[in-house]
Amino acid sequence: MGIVVQKYGGSSLADADAIKRVARRIVEIKKAGNDVVVAVSAMGDTTDDLYDLANGVSPLPPAREMDMLLTAGERISMALVAMAISDLGYTARSFTGSQAGVITDAVHGKAKIIDVTPGRITEALGEGHIVIVAGFQGVSADTKEITTLGRGGTDTTAVALAAALEADVCEIYTDVDGVFTADPRIVPSARKLDRVSYEEMLELAACGAKILHLRCVEYGRRYGIPIHVRSSFSRLEGTWVVDDPARDETAQGETVEQPIIAGVAHDRSEAKITVVGVPDKVGEAARIFEALADAQINLDMIVQNVSAAATSLTDISFTLPRSDGQTAMTALARIQAEVGYDKLLYDDKIGKISLIGAGMRSHPGITSKFFAAIASAGVNIEMISTSEIRISVIVDEKDVDDAVRSTHTAFDLDADEVEAVVYGGTGR
Amino acid sequence: MGIVVQKYGGSSLADADAIKRVARRIVEIKKAGNDVVVAVSAMGDTTDDLYDLANGVSPLPPAREMDMLLTAGERISMALVAMAISDLGYTARSFTGSQAGVITDAVHGKAKIIDVTPGRITEALGEGHIVIVAGFQGVSADTKEITTLGRGGTDTTAVALAAALEADVCEIYTDVDGVFTADPRIVPSARKLDRVSYEEMLELAACGAKILHLRCVEYGRRYGIPIHVRSSFSRLEGTWVVDDPARDETAQGETVEQPIIAGVAHDRSEAKITVVGVPDKVGEAARIFEALADAQINLDMIVQNVSAAATSLTDISFTLPRSDGQTAMTALARIQAEVGYDKLLYDDKIGKISLIGAGMRSHPGITSKFFAAIASAGVNIEMISTSEIRISVIVDEKDVDDAVRSTHTAFDLDADEVEAVVYGGTGR
Repeated sequence: MGIVVQKYGGSSLADADAIKRVARRIVEIKKAGNDVVVAVSAMGDTTDDLYDLANGVSPLPPAREMDMLLTAGERISMALVAMAISDLGYTARSFTGSQAGVITDAVHGKAKIIDVTPGRITEALGEGHIVIVAGFQGVSADTKEITTLGRGGTDTTAVALAAALEADVCEIYTDVDGVFTADPRIVPSARKLDRVSYEEMLELAACGAKILHLRCVEYGRRYGIPIHVRSSFSRLEGTWVVDDPARDETAQGETVEQPIIAGVAHDRSEAKITVVGVPDKVGEAARIFEALADAQINLDMIVQNVSAAATSLTDISFTLPRSDGQTAMTALARIQAEVGYDKLLYDDKIGKISLIGAGMRSHPGITSKFFAAIASAGVNIEMISTSEIRISVIVDEKDVDDAVRSTHTAFDLDADEVEAVVYGGTGR
Repeated sequence: MGIVVQKYGGSSLADADAIKRVARRIVEIKKAGNDVVVAVSAMGDTTDDLYDLANGVSPLPPAREMDMLLTAGERISMALVAMAISDLGYTARSFTGSQAGVITDAVHGKAKIIDVTPGRITEALGEGHIVIVAGFQGVSADTKEITTLGRGGTDTTAVALAAALEADVCEIYTDVDGVFTADPRIVPSARKLDRVSYEEMLELAACGAKILHLRCVEYGRRYGIPIHVRSSFSRLEGTWVVDDPARDETAQGETVEQPIIAGVAHDRSEAKITVVGVPDKVGEAARIFEALADAQINLDMIVQNVSAAATSLTDISFTLPRSDGQTAMTALARIQAEVGYDKLLYDDKIGKISLIGAGMRSHPGITSKFFAAIASAGVNIEMISTSEIRISVIVDEKDVDDAVRSTHTAFDLDADEVEAVVYGGTGR
């Protein structure tokens, strides 16, 4: 008898019927002889409704009270799931993040879990109950304040509980069948991955695949928790995120030990800023990035051209979240005289395409094949960045779909048949 | 600088505008140099909405989970009130019942407060914050489970906090101007009472006046907390519930030391059961009331006719909440053979009229004047019960309004001018 931790997002808990369906699914696992712990998000649009309420009373609500407000959402859904389970003849106990021992730092709105002390959960399991835990929330270690973990936080709650309870598996239920080789809305022939490594999943999540929260994957990797991403609307096996992904190799068109490519991700949420005519002296670039760091801006890709010897001037380009674009431009404008650059260019009509696969480490020629695929789609590459298991390029936003499709085909990722899915984000 | 505890019900927190109005009111008290602690109910219809959600997933939800669900309502409203206060330039900290130290027994759905340990409240007040507390809820002493106090519980939360904090006053804000000599919907000339004693208020609450929760008044009396019942929609002084009510005597048409009558209450929520032909032997009546007690039924008035010597049979009548009628009839039917009574009569078309006043203790003739007033309205009295400061009669339900009006006039309670109010219940 093992412990199974499950997570259900808001779309899986949209109304009474959905909650009853989830309850039946939970009871099945219990019937099979497992202890079951379930992390739930708020129902459907509850979080948006609560945001609307807050905006109705204050344009800039204090973060502490915002957390107090938003955590009501999971409180409602967890109680309803527990009721639906009891209606099936099983007993359930719901616990808030605080009661479940989810201890965080004190950063309201984006707290990080620093410990899980699941004494009450273990006790309830020992008494034969199914345990339902409010996702997305915790309590701060020192100040005992209610905190929230930010968007996608319930994924992280589930994996953190799985780690603390030494669960056999953490099942993340969502509204798609698993992790795909590309966004099926763009590439209808995208295939569901049976297995993917933590590293690849981290790169996929960081590069725009919204299926799993980044911190959830980090947590899973650190504690070695197998994460099973699957649909709450079907009975299909989903995608296993594990340490050693023995993916079905023939489907990849490869017969080597490790398949090369996990998938093609894309991201339309970034903007590009170019600082033109920066004096090519020691410390100038540092001054620019210092100013951006002071403004709390996370940069993604950074490219510096080699300076033409004649001018001793260089251009520095970088990408960042579009939502930070205005802040970054203001911060840079403030240091123009000091740095002595020529001008700033801002472009938010860009997209990022990323090719991800642990196997590319030992396979030369991946980069050239990737660039050739993009060129064959008639798409121009504006910036390039690489990691051990990822190559990313920036292209014109309008060219994203073509570039993704061409790449997907070039690496033999297309399925024989189109799998009918809708690719969407998870709740919180 | 004193401590003021306020309570706002759901009708005072119906929407964003109402919440902002409440916030301004709270800030005024703070500005005047007081420490302010506010207990809030759930917004408007939130509680009903949560009940609907629960019924959607389970016909008989477990009480523990029902409490978990319902307490989300106050969590939402307290966070919103705190936000609205911060928008006015003041700082507020909201606390759940558990965080506020409201310790209860473990009876879900109708828990009783057994202690208040307001350490976090005192600390927050010391830091200059306004404190908002979720009403209606607490945490059980031993099991650390979330509990609710039942309908009207937020009144009790407020008074309990006032007692624990040794507050100067507990202000109960509602949607009427105070406590009236009768329900103004029935008696348009009813007057607002400036002051009323705890004892009288207890009798009024027990006899159908829905303005204050019974347990709230009991708590106030035990700890000597002055309770000020007033409207959140006006600036008028309301009704003070205090130990020694120096009511305005002339308005009562009396010039004695203490006015005789506080008001006339009525109640249409009871039913009457008559057990006909009970053998007039020792123990038979006890067996009947034992069966009712076993069925957890609270009886109100009880009347036993003197038996006719010829038959040695007696009739026993009692009143009880209509909602318990079916349960009581079933319990009694089960013991018919054992007790040997003749038959049961059930009547849920009754009403109770109660005349309440601490002064009636020392005034003979009140009873006869009361009965005469009812007779003059052409109304027949079916049952009578009295206490030190109350006389209650049971009449036909259709005669309730006439009997109340006639009594109100007979005791000179009518105001010279009709005060424009709508008399309604408080939230929870």
